[in-house]
Amino acid sequence: MENSKIVGLVIGALLVALAFLMLVPMLADLVVQSGDWTAFLSGAVITGFCGGALMLANETDQRDLGQRETFMVTTLAWVVVSGFAALPFCFSQVEMSFTDAYFESMSGFTTTGSTVMVGLDSMPPGILLWRALTQWVGGVGIILTAVAILPFLRIGGMQLFRTESSDRSDKVMPRPGQTAVAIGEVYLLLTLLCAFAFSAAGMSPFDAITHAMTALATGGYSTHDASFGYFNSPLIDWIGAIFMLAGSLPLLLYVSTVRGTGEAIWRDTQVRSFIGFTLAVSVVMAIWLSARGDYTFVGALRYTFFSVASVISTTGFANIDYTLWAPFASMAFLILTFLGGCTGSTAGGIKMFRLQILVMLFRSQNRQTLYPHVAQTLRFGDRTVSREVVTSVTLFVFVYVATVLVGGLALTACGLDVVTALSSSATALGNVGPGIGSIVGPAGNFSTLPDGAKWILSLIMLLGRLELMTVLIMFSRDFWQR
Amino acid sequence: MENSKIVGLVIGALLVALAFLMLVPMLADLVVQSGDWTAFLSGAVITGFCGGALMLANETDQRDLGQRETFMVTTLAWVVVSGFAALPFCFSQVEMSFTDAYFESMSGFTTTGSTVMVGLDSMPPGILLWRALTQWVGGVGIILTAVAILPFLRIGGMQLFRTESSDRSDKVMPRPGQTAVAIGEVYLLLTLLCAFAFSAAGMSPFDAITHAMTALATGGYSTHDASFGYFNSPLIDWIGAIFMLAGSLPLLLYVSTVRGTGEAIWRDTQVRSFIGFTLAVSVVMAIWLSARGDYTFVGALRYTFFSVASVISTTGFANIDYTLWAPFASMAFLILTFLGGCTGSTAGGIKMFRLQILVMLFRSQNRQTLYPHVAQTLRFGDRTVSREVVTSVTLFVFVYVATVLVGGLALTACGLDVVTALSSSATALGNVGPGIGSIVGPAGNFSTLPDGAKWILSLIMLLGRLELMTVLIMFSRDFWQR
Repeated sequence: MENSKIVGLVIGALLVALAFLMLVPMLADLVVQSGDWTAFLSGAVITGFCGGALMLANETDQRDLGQRETFMVTTLAWVVVSGFAALPFCFSQVEMSFTDAYFESMSGFTTTGSTVMVGLDSMPPGILLWRALTQWVGGVGIILTAVAILPFLRIGGMQLFRTESSDRSDKVMPRPGQTAVAIGEVYLLLTLLCAFAFSAAGMSPFDAITHAMTALATGGYSTHDASFGYFNSPLIDWIGAIFMLAGSLPLLLYVSTVRGTGEAIWRDTQVRSFIGFTLAVSVVMAIWLSARGDYTFVGALRYTFFSVASVISTTGFANIDYTLWAPFASMAFLILTFLGGCTGSTAGGIKMFRLQILVMLFRSQNRQTLYPHVAQTLRFGDRTVSREVVTSVTLFVFVYVATVLVGGLALTACGLDVVTALSSSATALGNVGPGIGSIVGPAGNFSTLPDGAKWILSLIMLLGRLELMTVLIMFSRDFWQR
Repeated sequence: MENSKIVGLVIGALLVALAFLMLVPMLADLVVQSGDWTAFLSGAVITGFCGGALMLANETDQRDLGQRETFMVTTLAWVVVSGFAALPFCFSQVEMSFTDAYFESMSGFTTTGSTVMVGLDSMPPGILLWRALTQWVGGVGIILTAVAILPFLRIGGMQLFRTESSDRSDKVMPRPGQTAVAIGEVYLLLTLLCAFAFSAAGMSPFDAITHAMTALATGGYSTHDASFGYFNSPLIDWIGAIFMLAGSLPLLLYVSTVRGTGEAIWRDTQVRSFIGFTLAVSVVMAIWLSARGDYTFVGALRYTFFSVASVISTTGFANIDYTLWAPFASMAFLILTFLGGCTGSTAGGIKMFRLQILVMLFRSQNRQTLYPHVAQTLRFGDRTVSREVVTSVTLFVFVYVATVLVGGLALTACGLDVVTALSSSATALGNVGPGIGSIVGPAGNFSTLPDGAKWILSLIMLLGRLELMTVLIMFSRDFWQR
């Protein structure tokens, strides 16, 4: 590293910010006079002290992050922040082990939403708010990472979206700082809109705010063990589904749509495919489910649309245990777990644009075979997809699937059965939340898994959140050589 | 089609050859005076008549197959030949439905080895020999297809091996006809060698010949319900494992090694990786299995080496039910089901050279990210891997995984549970044989699956055998347009 001090400085600054964030749930506990406020105060003091010390120890005039430093900061940020954000869980009256606390915290910041906590309904508001906040902050963190960092690191074909910011003509914002502010504004606005809608549909203000935060973050932490099943309200389900989908669209497109400075969101290739696919799958599953006789078509659609939106947006809220319907439903949702939302959003998974490029590649490859002498070009929206992007995308998908399989193997080594291992590996890598089967399914809970499995899943969540290569490149020899 | 008559002519000729092949098991039944010989005679008459009629109806002077005709012939050959080869199963005293017979026949010709037949030990020799013959002939069929046809159709990166025949310098054989004869000779020689070894180790001559045929074909049909468990002999297990691996090496390399006209087989990049990987996995699993306390290391290695060789070579013989060891073993074998042997052999699966290219691509992509201005080239052995090959390979792997998932979804729609559906989809696409779980596992049998599932699996076997794109391209609009 030419300048490793900048890495320490940035991480330190993030920890100081995290310490301030811990004061929010502390205030919530003070308001309802819960003794749990001390957990957040202790957490904030330790985190703030460590962060401050790290900043002082790494004082430097350097303000430019090199490429290697950027990889390190990005990965370390999620690892270290999750570690300190786990402290309140340990100090709280819920008395979690550090393993459980770290899992819960990583699951929050990566907006995965798998939980090891049981008895949410009777917990003090501070800890529930803290869970929601980790997801909400993690969500905006990953959008900024996806928009500002990953395209320049050439990760998984994200360079396709590099032109968006470097080409003057269709630039949404003139400067990166303004872009960040605009994204933050849209994110806040959508969250408030969602909270207002939830509240109007009958949720308590606290539930409305926490669920709005975790819906827009496509995180999926609820304040009730039964998740959306607790509210038992079709209206709330529909609102939830719409805002989960809203959170998995590219946030910059909301800005350009409102300001009229670029393509409208409904004209975007990725958005159209994503919404179209979600609707099609929901309707087909609703037809299948209503044909089984338990529901009317509309009744079935309430559950299929919500569940499909929840899984494909990688949120993980549940209003029903769809794995009880039939193996067909389990398998369908397992496949949806791989897909994911749009890039530049809070959603995880392989993501729609990569799947679109692969489908286009499949067609163009067939044409290439039939007409070897006609040059084939791939177009994504109004952009030409370079060979480099194609290679990045296909390699990403291979590494993605290989990681699910190797992760599943590691989890079976901890004693999990094949379905639980494979589906929890897939759900962690996609940052979705629920897996398949009675243990990790939508009605299950990750608390009974062995500690080893929780650490493996925490690592897989991190890999998924940072689009794999950001983390994996640090394991290559070239990374550490100059 | 400019000349569809040639397609009919070739298929007709294949059927006539198939009719003659049916006379072999007929003779076997006549020798032991089993009444089942009539099944083969009836089958031969019908097949020969239809084949002859097809040849007469499609008489043509044309001898050159166009590209589209080649795709059609390749796919139709497997579909139609399997259909007629199913007839003896229907006519035999075992009285199979056409669905079961077609599944068994397709599983034979694709050298998959999944079976719907129970009570093999008491069946007449004709039907057992017929099963072995379908695999043996299917095996040599796929080698010729992989060597002579697929590289020219640019399927799944097989164009990498096109130079082998078109470049004068390292050409094994001067003409395609001679290549075919040489491959046939090596295949026959290895089969005889294997039969001799089996016989010397204590198998009956009939068992030795049939198991030698299905080992070299990496098919896996046995003459006993218990497969290799029936013999209960470590020596026979070791011989079996070695010849299964021998069948999954590129057959042309045996020729070049013996004649000294090219690279020796033990210097080949693909072969070294394949053998090294197989040994490493076997040893690691033997250490794991012996650590559990039931076996010594050598005792464990007998089972792990045989099982790993059986699955990775896509044969499917079983000497033990490894799925009973632990979920870890089930998951490990499920992953091995995807891999497969070397190209140019009878093995199925993704195949070693594609995995090697993907691993190289992963490394080179990391270097590309770190040094964007240094051009990276991929080298496979002494060949340069072109961008076109890289794209073909990565796309192939994506389509492969997607097919397993979609196949699994279709199978759950037939009522199969998730593990059975997913693993039988993977084992069919890899032309392996056994899946995971009590129904389709190494100790199980496909007979209890619903008819719909058997047809779906037959289709998946075909897709796997013909490297997916050969079949899928015919579903594109471009294929049918001029």
